[in-house]
Amino acid sequence: MKPTSRTARSTREMSTTVSRVRAAYARIEAVNRPEIWIDLRPQPEVESEARAIDERVSAGDQLPLAGRLFAAKGNIDVHGLPTTAGCPAYAYEPSADAPVVARLRAAGAIVLGTTNLDQFATGLVGTRSPYGAVRNAHDPERISGGSSAGSAVAVALGIVDFALGTDTAGSGRVPAAFNGIVGLKPTRGLVPTTGVVPACASIDCVTVFARTLPEAEQALSFMTSPPTRTLPPLPQRTPGPWRIAVPARDQLGELDEGWAEAYEEAVTRLRSAGCEIHTLDLTPFTEAAAMLYQGAFVAERYTAVGAFVDKAIASGTEGLDPTVTGIITRARDIPAHQLYADEERLAALRTRALSELADADALLLPTTPGHPTLAEVAEDPLGANARLGRFTNSTNLFDLAAVAVPSGKVNGLPFGVMLIGPAFTDDRLARIARELEPETHIAVVGAHLTGQPLNPQLLSLGARLDRTTTTAPVYRLHALTTTPPKPGLVHVGDGGASIETEVWRLPAEGLGRLLTALPRPMTLGSVQLADGTSVPGFLCEPAALEDAEDITTYGGWRNYVNS
Amino acid sequence: MKPTSRTARSTREMSTTVSRVRAAYARIEAVNRPEIWIDLRPQPEVESEARAIDERVSAGDQLPLAGRLFAAKGNIDVHGLPTTAGCPAYAYEPSADAPVVARLRAAGAIVLGTTNLDQFATGLVGTRSPYGAVRNAHDPERISGGSSAGSAVAVALGIVDFALGTDTAGSGRVPAAFNGIVGLKPTRGLVPTTGVVPACASIDCVTVFARTLPEAEQALSFMTSPPTRTLPPLPQRTPGPWRIAVPARDQLGELDEGWAEAYEEAVTRLRSAGCEIHTLDLTPFTEAAAMLYQGAFVAERYTAVGAFVDKAIASGTEGLDPTVTGIITRARDIPAHQLYADEERLAALRTRALSELADADALLLPTTPGHPTLAEVAEDPLGANARLGRFTNSTNLFDLAAVAVPSGKVNGLPFGVMLIGPAFTDDRLARIARELEPETHIAVVGAHLTGQPLNPQLLSLGARLDRTTTTAPVYRLHALTTTPPKPGLVHVGDGGASIETEVWRLPAEGLGRLLTALPRPMTLGSVQLADGTSVPGFLCEPAALEDAEDITTYGGWRNYVNS
Repeated sequence: MKPTSRTARSTREMSTTVSRVRAAYARIEAVNRPEIWIDLRPQPEVESEARAIDERVSAGDQLPLAGRLFAAKGNIDVHGLPTTAGCPAYAYEPSADAPVVARLRAAGAIVLGTTNLDQFATGLVGTRSPYGAVRNAHDPERISGGSSAGSAVAVALGIVDFALGTDTAGSGRVPAAFNGIVGLKPTRGLVPTTGVVPACASIDCVTVFARTLPEAEQALSFMTSPPTRTLPPLPQRTPGPWRIAVPARDQLGELDEGWAEAYEEAVTRLRSAGCEIHTLDLTPFTEAAAMLYQGAFVAERYTAVGAFVDKAIASGTEGLDPTVTGIITRARDIPAHQLYADEERLAALRTRALSELADADALLLPTTPGHPTLAEVAEDPLGANARLGRFTNSTNLFDLAAVAVPSGKVNGLPFGVMLIGPAFTDDRLARIARELEPETHIAVVGAHLTGQPLNPQLLSLGARLDRTTTTAPVYRLHALTTTPPKPGLVHVGDGGASIETEVWRLPAEGLGRLLTALPRPMTLGSVQLADGTSVPGFLCEPAALEDAEDITTYGGWRNYVNS
Repeated sequence: MKPTSRTARSTREMSTTVSRVRAAYARIEAVNRPEIWIDLRPQPEVESEARAIDERVSAGDQLPLAGRLFAAKGNIDVHGLPTTAGCPAYAYEPSADAPVVARLRAAGAIVLGTTNLDQFATGLVGTRSPYGAVRNAHDPERISGGSSAGSAVAVALGIVDFALGTDTAGSGRVPAAFNGIVGLKPTRGLVPTTGVVPACASIDCVTVFARTLPEAEQALSFMTSPPTRTLPPLPQRTPGPWRIAVPARDQLGELDEGWAEAYEEAVTRLRSAGCEIHTLDLTPFTEAAAMLYQGAFVAERYTAVGAFVDKAIASGTEGLDPTVTGIITRARDIPAHQLYADEERLAALRTRALSELADADALLLPTTPGHPTLAEVAEDPLGANARLGRFTNSTNLFDLAAVAVPSGKVNGLPFGVMLIGPAFTDDRLARIARELEPETHIAVVGAHLTGQPLNPQLLSLGARLDRTTTTAPVYRLHALTTTPPKPGLVHVGDGGASIETEVWRLPAEGLGRLLTALPRPMTLGSVQLADGTSVPGFLCEPAALEDAEDITTYGGWRNYVNS
């Protein structure tokens, strides 16, 4: 019996790239959200690429992202598809992948297509597009958030493993929050913006969405370049708990119903995880945020596409979003002397903001103050959008890094928070964000135990070992006739015994995927532990026990396997 | 006999701060260049300050700049004088010294007044001022250069020891070149610009003029702040000769008559000093230079003073320079989107420029392409000015450091060159520039020898020991009855001996000062060395020998003193 090699082969057979591509296209069909995509690659073409990847893996090629599927925001060059930036008349055929796309593909990832966005990445709503307003993954009456709208929803609906966005005012974070996924907004310059249609070229960042932090971080690790600039070295941290800065409640301004409480819960979760919480003055952040569209900085959008927009309007071109083109053309006459004045004011605000951050490892904020419906945005396109950027707008102006993560739900819809820190604190922010990820405990007693054949599955879902213990003395353990061999844990009450157990912490999203992939006759249910608490854990269907040997006396699966 | 202490007292008596102030005001009277000053402090007030300095020095206070006199450009706050920026209607009474002035005063230096400038520091000519066109120190028909016009001329005419300027397009270097003095343009941010009326706030630098490099460097050492930013560390230099980049001759464009040859001489001097010379492409530098006034960057001048200028013009205010106000008001309507485009273009040019500089320790350039007369500038104010900035304009746009030094004369007028290098190479540039300073050798045989009482005088003039040798065997040495005791070296031909000699290298300007301060019965004349060459050196008047003991047999002054 060679359980390990049999497992490995069986896992590979179940999850070839080709089958994952087929599942993705089936999912695209099933979710019926055509507005996600601007250009979706034909399935046969993608399958053929997937087959090539599978063959290369079989031949021993190192392709760390083999099997991973992604989508690229429609302002990022994907060779073979037009780059539209959400404007059909603007479209051009890129002669190559943007470097960030090329790097992911070189690592084995497959791009399915380009996604819908607020035209010219100008917006935080996801509705400003002739390709259709992008509906929220969880509630089609609400906005997806933008501008990286389609990318976020494609991830949230489980079509792709990750997706590329861009972030100038918050476009890589707002849709993450609204769709309950992770959005990494790397330090400016870490990820090349070559081959990306600029919004505000000097502060644009390429971002990544995924359902869990580890998945987002893995993708990002293939996207970064060696820094092209050196900043003051990060202050050496005194070892100790993370120091989290939060604003006074009144500085958060008006939040949607239930959002203040949800934010407070996130603060509490960090405090419970051992973080030190202190208050900072949010004023420089919100004052700079207001400058992004109200001040002269918006002129950079005219620099990027103004000449095109002017000409398109003059010639009566279709497919222009009136809100977007209004913003851009109004920026034409902003005087340069005002820009200099704004830059000076921004520099002063930035000095204050960095000083506020000096004593903190990260600033924790709600990603947005609220989540409007499509109807609310249609009624007040500029006002609704401006409100959304209250917490995100200043991040790139201040040259900061940010990580947006889900943090529970409010009224059944995702609530998201951001961790913000100085440039190049990306890794630190992600480590702190892990404390915020919704997790569940899961008790394992068999093939998922450390060192056992299915343990890698837990690790790949981002799970971490919490503790080793035993069940309450009310269980019996059976050796099932599965492949690979697994135990069946059965609650019997009196006459039961304590069975060796590991409790793992699993990202909530990972639990769903674990359950989805769970083969018969295994089940998940409540498992009673030695300390009297109960956590979800692996059990089995009754029928599985029929031919199964009772191995309770071994005290646990490991002892039985080793015997 | 205590020669050292007697010498010290005697030196101090000769050069008290009070007497230096008196000499300065006498010189102001003598040179009859009233246009140098916008506000000159009353002599009694300055004498009283000088007396206080002298008393503090006597009391043992450490005032490293005691006795030094300086002037501040009229756009720099000097407490007690109005800050005009060259515009009477703009004047305000600063509530404190600018930090850079305060630091110099705290070190014991005394400021005599504020100097004339191109209004709002907008110009490289020195003629754009209601306080009068500043005439060149060496030829009153020619321009002083600007905008730091009065500061440069005050130094060149020997009124003050050093003076503060500012440099945006080249205002701290062009007037240095035209007046035959040194101008240090420090790396942006090294010297605070607080209390300075901005020209282009984001790139303005405070600069210093002096007659020799060591004097300029000494003043600068009191002006700098710890850097407020960190740049990529300078590449580790492979030990070896300085690597000097020069453009191909045709990239220098049209130069005044004789200037190409003068520049070639500077190149030759560096080559002779052991530097390696190679060619670079000057295109990115000259292209960026053209952008400074032709592009959108000039809008920053409107940000600084545009509102004032608009109002002043509307109300018919007097004392506005029409050329300057024309430049500023035309900048009002430059659109911000053009500024973004220019900044992008500049960033690309800067990348090219830094790449051109990568293999060099410094770029050597003429400071300007030529030196116009006052009449030529009056005829074509904009054209003449634009030409002057061809080599200087890009320095601050590219965030580079520069040192401007005199390099000989052409047709009897000063010719100047610049060394330009990456940010924070200031010290390196100054070290290289030393090779360009006109120097003379001077032979010393007595009280100026290393360790002897008057040696500090040589050091304070910027002299460096070149070699230790002896005279040709044709001299006799006598002990003069001077205070402090000195030897008299006398050429006798046959019957002479070889006398211990040190040969020092002295900046040419220092030689003049040495000679000016030389007390009877000492003289300077040609001294024949053991190797057959001759250099200037200390001799004495014949009458001094009358009562003097012949000490030739000691072989040198040191042996005699020690005996």
